[in-house]
Formats: sequence, C-alpha cells, structure tokens
Amino acid sequence: MTVPKAPQIFPRSEYLRRIDAVKAEMAKQGVDALVVNNIRNITYLTGYTAKSAYVPQGVIISARQAEPAFILRQCDWPAALHQAWMSRDNIIMYPESLIGVDGKDGYDAVIDHVIDLGLAGQNVGLEFNDLMVSQMEKFKRRLPEAKLVDCAKLVAWVRGVKSDLEIALMREAGAIADAAVLRAAEVIRPGVREADVAAEIYKTVVKGANGKVGTDVVNLFLCSSPRTGTCHIRWTEDTIKQGSQINLELGAVRHAYVSAIMRTYSVGEPSDRLRRIHDGEVAGLEAALAAAKPGATCHDVAKAFNTTLAKYGFKKETRCGYAIGIEWLEPTASLQEGDMTVLKPNMTFHLMLGNWVDEDFGYSISETFRVTETGSETLTNAPRKLFQIN
Amino acid sequence: MTVPKAPQIFPRSEYLRRIDAVKAEMAKQGVDALVVNNIRNITYLTGYTAKSAYVPQGVIISARQAEPAFILRQCDWPAALHQAWMSRDNIIMYPESLIGVDGKDGYDAVIDHVIDLGLAGQNVGLEFNDLMVSQMEKFKRRLPEAKLVDCAKLVAWVRGVKSDLEIALMREAGAIADAAVLRAAEVIRPGVREADVAAEIYKTVVKGANGKVGTDVVNLFLCSSPRTGTCHIRWTEDTIKQGSQINLELGAVRHAYVSAIMRTYSVGEPSDRLRRIHDGEVAGLEAALAAAKPGATCHDVAKAFNTTLAKYGFKKETRCGYAIGIEWLEPTASLQEGDMTVLKPNMTFHLMLGNWVDEDFGYSISETFRVTETGSETLTNAPRKLFQIN
Repeated sequence: MTVPKAPQIFPRSEYLRRIDAVKAEMAKQGVDALVVNNIRNITYLTGYTAKSAYVPQGVIISARQAEPAFILRQCDWPAALHQAWMSRDNIIMYPESLIGVDGKDGYDAVIDHVIDLGLAGQNVGLEFNDLMVSQMEKFKRRLPEAKLVDCAKLVAWVRGVKSDLEIALMREAGAIADAAVLRAAEVIRPGVREADVAAEIYKTVVKGANGKVGTDVVNLFLCSSPRTGTCHIRWTEDTIKQGSQINLELGAVRHAYVSAIMRTYSVGEPSDRLRRIHDGEVAGLEAALAAAKPGATCHDVAKAFNTTLAKYGFKKETRCGYAIGIEWLEPTASLQEGDMTVLKPNMTFHLMLGNWVDEDFGYSISETFRVTETGSETLTNAPRKLFQIN
Repeated sequence: MTVPKAPQIFPRSEYLRRIDAVKAEMAKQGVDALVVNNIRNITYLTGYTAKSAYVPQGVIISARQAEPAFILRQCDWPAALHQAWMSRDNIIMYPESLIGVDGKDGYDAVIDHVIDLGLAGQNVGLEFNDLMVSQMEKFKRRLPEAKLVDCAKLVAWVRGVKSDLEIALMREAGAIADAAVLRAAEVIRPGVREADVAAEIYKTVVKGANGKVGTDVVNLFLCSSPRTGTCHIRWTEDTIKQGSQINLELGAVRHAYVSAIMRTYSVGEPSDRLRRIHDGEVAGLEAALAAAKPGATCHDVAKAFNTTLAKYGFKKETRCGYAIGIEWLEPTASLQEGDMTVLKPNMTFHLMLGNWVDEDFGYSISETFRVTETGSETLTNAPRKLFQIN
C-alpha cells in the first residue's frame, strides 16, 4: 500500500515561486544545477520536515527540470512521499547499505543522480558551508568534469523575504511563544525547580494556542541566578528562590517556522540595576522597531537600539538580532552596525536584545518582527515588561 | 563579580582519565595537538553542555598541557566558566566582532591559540568530519607549516566505553524514558491530538523520575496511522482514532547522557500483522541481548536478531542499532552484520529495532543496554509489550 499525501501546508504555486526564485539566482551565478543539503533549505524547497538530516540527503534543482529531485535514505523515503509536494518520481531512496559503513554514504547516491541527470560536466552549485571536508572530497573525486561552485547562502537569501503564507505561520508561532511566556509567569515561584518551569513551557509550546498546535520544539534557555550572565544553558536542577532572576529565551514552531521571544522575570523586587537595564532595553527595542522599515538597513536598526541604550548607561556587546524563519536563525541579514542589508517588506527578524553585561549579570528581552510596507510589526506580543513574581 | 563554578557532574579525576585516553590515541596517530570542535566531544572533555555550537568553538588538547584549552564566543564564556572543570586560565573568549561577518569567524581565534601554544609547525589533529569546507580551508591557509591530520572519530571511540559514573547517568535517563513511555500509555486515547500526547511526553522527560530531572530534551518521534511506515516525523495536528497505531521513539537526558526507547501502541485490537511482527521483534530483541557480551561482536548481535526475526517471516532493512551516549548517537560501533567491533564491558548501545516494513506500515521497539562483565543489561525497562489502549 502507498502512504497518502499529507494535507499540504503550502499550495504547489508557493513552491514553484520559491524554485523560480532559486533558479533566477542560479542563472545569475552561472550554475546549471544546484545540490541542496542544508536541511532548512530542503524544508523550504520541498515541505519535508522529518528529522533525517543526521544522514546525507540532497535536493537537486536543475535549470531543465520543473520539480526538484529529493534523494534520501530508504527508511525516510515514506516520510518524504507523505510530506513533500513533488510527484513520486522525484522522491528517490538510497539503500540502507550506505548507512554506518566507512567510505560510502548517501552522497554517493546524490552524486549518482547528478550523473544520471547528465549534469556531470556542468556547473554544479554546492552549499560549501554545509558540506564536511570528506563529503566535498567525494564530490570532487566523483565529478571530476564538473565545475563545483560555492552557492552557500543562495537559498538562504531567497528565504529572507517571506510570502504572506509564511508570515501567517510565523504569526501563529508567535502567539504560541507568547502563551509560553505567560505560562512561565504562572509557574515561576520560590521553591519550584527550574526543570518544572521548563516542563510547563515545553507542554505549552507543543499544545499550542488558538487551536494551532506547536509542530516541533526549538531552543529553550532558562538562565537563572547565578547564571543570568549566561545565555545558552538549558535549565538546571536548582530550585528557584526568593530574589532569583530568570532570563528566558524560547521559540515556538508552526510547520518549521519559528517565532522567538525573550523575557526576564524577578522573584520579588528587582534590583535597581535590573530596573535600569530593563528601562533602557525597552526604550532601545522601541527605537529599533521604529527604525525598521523598507529602505532602511540592518545597520540603522542596530544603531537606533545602541544609541538609545547608551543613554541609559549600558552597552550591548552581542549583535541586535538576525533573520529568522525556518528553524530559527537564518545565516544572512544580521542586525548589527555595519550590515548594510536593505530591509524589504516581509523580511523577518529576531530582534534579540539579550544583554550579558557581566559574568554574573545579564538581562533578556526580544521580539520577532516583520518589515511591513511602511514600518514594522511584531509577531510576538507578550507584555513587554519585567515580570515581577510576588 | 565572577560567576561561581556549578556543582560538578564528574570529579576532576574522571576528566583526567578521559584526557589521558585521548592523549594515548593521539600518540598512536603521531599527533602533537588535537583541535576538537564536535560539540559532543567538547562536552565529554570539558563538562560544558550549553548550546552554543551553532558558532565555531574549539577545545585544544596538547601533549604538553595537563588541562585542555577551550576557546569560545564571548557571550558563552561565562557558561563555560560555570560548567567546565578546567581553571579560568584555560577558558578563553573570542570577541563578538567575529560573529555574523563574512570571512572571519571563531576559528580564527582557535587558530590564533594554536599558534600561541607554539603548535603551528606541529602535527595538528582535526575532526575532518565536523569541519565545513570553508573552515578547513582556513586551517590550511593559516597553518601552512602544520601537518593537519584527520582525527575524525578519535574522541568518539574513546567515548565508546563508559565509566561507571557515566552508566549511572544513563540509568537515570533510562528511568525517565520509561516514565515517558508509561505516560504516553495513559494519554493516548481516541479523540486526543497527537500534539497533546507529545506535550505530555515532553513534560515527563523534563520533570524526570525518581527526583532526577531531565536536563535537556532530545528526539521525540510519534508516527501514527497512516504514518507508521515513517520513522522521523515529530507528530502532527491529527486526532488519534479508534484503530490507530502509534509508533513512539523518545529519549531522556541526564547531563547530556541519553537513554532511548521505542514502543508501539494500538488503540483497540491490534491487527494480526502487528501482533505477528511484535512477537518476532520481541523474540529477536531477547536473542540480541543474549548474544551481547564481552568478546562478541556487533555483527553477532545483529545476526542473532535478524535470524530470529526471519523465523517469524519478517526482515529488517535498517541496522539493529548503534553506540549511544552523549546526545544520542555515537558514530562508531554499529549493530549490523559485517561490523566486527568487539564488545567490551560498559559499551552502551541503542538496540534500535524499529522496522519500517512497508510505505504505510511499520513497528517500533528498542532498548538501551550496556555490555556487562558477562552479558548485557538494559538501562530502559518499560514493559516490553505492544501497548493496547481500550
């Protein structure tokens, strides 16, 4: 029996639009075929979200083919038949005998398909940033006549401007992230373990909001006193105490699309320093959102934040954010001074204003926003306050 | 103020033992220094578990230094001071100005440190399997006098045999995984959304068991009818129905150490085919566990399973499992016919017997086990049954 096609998240026309945009970039770079192995790019081009990227797999886009070909491991082939928009002919399995052995792997099957498509003597784009050294050597060895071209961020830049359909999913994800921020405020109490708070957050981001479930989990960081100067610790076995500060960073997912948010909680009266940085950061956040509009640059947004924060006597060392979309971070536009990327409508960013001031002191706030036709709009909307737990 | 050192998960002597074992392997391979960038290996050598591996970072082990040096991003430096066992002198930050810019990145700081240690003209081991093409080119360009040696799985093989301290954590993780399997049996009901089941599982694996919290989350796959022929789909928005079959794969984490388990659930009477494959798989699982003992090979274990299963009229295409430890899969010993790795006490495996028979039909069962002095012992202990929900 065949596995049925899943309800499709996007219409075929949306994928064709994406493929056309990628092909246009390929033409600019003189590339006849593109081999995509970055899993976020594969999701973007096919709709496939199963978690099989720990083994090699590849999507091949050829100027001559309307649909991309997706080559993946045998045991993951039914998931691709189920999820991906393409016809069965373009979803190709490689055998299990390529798993867990030395010398051979799934890229041999991907390269076989490149050869089958008659592309072995062509200009073949690869994502150099997503290929390991040994994998690259295989491409060079087995495609000696091909000119291998670095197309590292080609698809990622296409992903940068979202369609309204993608924005709708990120809006739903934002509402789930908001719900998790509010749930944390309900469960953070003296005597509660950090892990118990984390457990409730996970439950919330998966159950979802407004009848829309979370379709995956992404990063959750809960950095509590004395760890507020750290940013990427999951949580600990410690119990929250009176006087504890908790910095939270979390995201929610709708069909691979992420909206992220950060907020800070104080159990009892916040310190003066915490109040002051909160005031400065919120003012900076609002200045940054006001600066974000079509025609402005990433630089302008970061500058607006940094200038405002400086008035409050603080400085942020890390950048002010980055493009966000499928599975959180996009490796393209960066909200920092010096990044002259020009903003366009429906670009989306995590305005990440976490500020780790000292080894043992930091503060977290952020929003996910999109650029509109005239300015910006946040996709996360939890109260922009320092949550005080009494 | 300085951030305090976290309660240490392992004593210093445990890390020194690991470092000594790595140095012994380095000597065999004629390597003067080893640059480790695989995050699982970094965790193994330092105790650091914060999630900063999306930017470059590196641990340098030099034959001449007692403690390894850990070079990481400025904003993550406090987390390393807090978690890692080494002295502050050996935890080195690189500046935020290396983030999000073209051409430069944290590997420049790692290479600077290799040069500072006087290693630029030496034999320097790198993990070729964990370096992207562009990163490798940087090492070659900036260390032209060094001989760069591929040490891809050097640390991973050392990790293969666990200490009793590591086994204790995996046993705790196993108990949490068991709790999640039993919780799923409580919440899987007709009319419940798959996401609601997933939400309860996440809550359970984070809250933990026996007073030990889950310190992270790892993979969760919930592949329900008509998706039981798939293996790596998270879950969907669908509602579970009378007659649904649910294949579950999940893991639990104690301080980076994972135990994994798979079980199958039937809402209502299981089909004949499902009953038959369950019987064959359980018999095969028991045969595999009986075959696992010091001196036997991975091949022997797989052969015991495959031979037994064949008697029931089924065949499994995928391998029978793999080494497991820090953050699930270890890329070394593989439970498949032809893998002649000899089992030693305290090697740990995920005996992964998920069997995706057809596009639209599969079955899941697995255990995490360790090799003992005389045989094997499972670290997961949920009932080894086909869970029937009535």
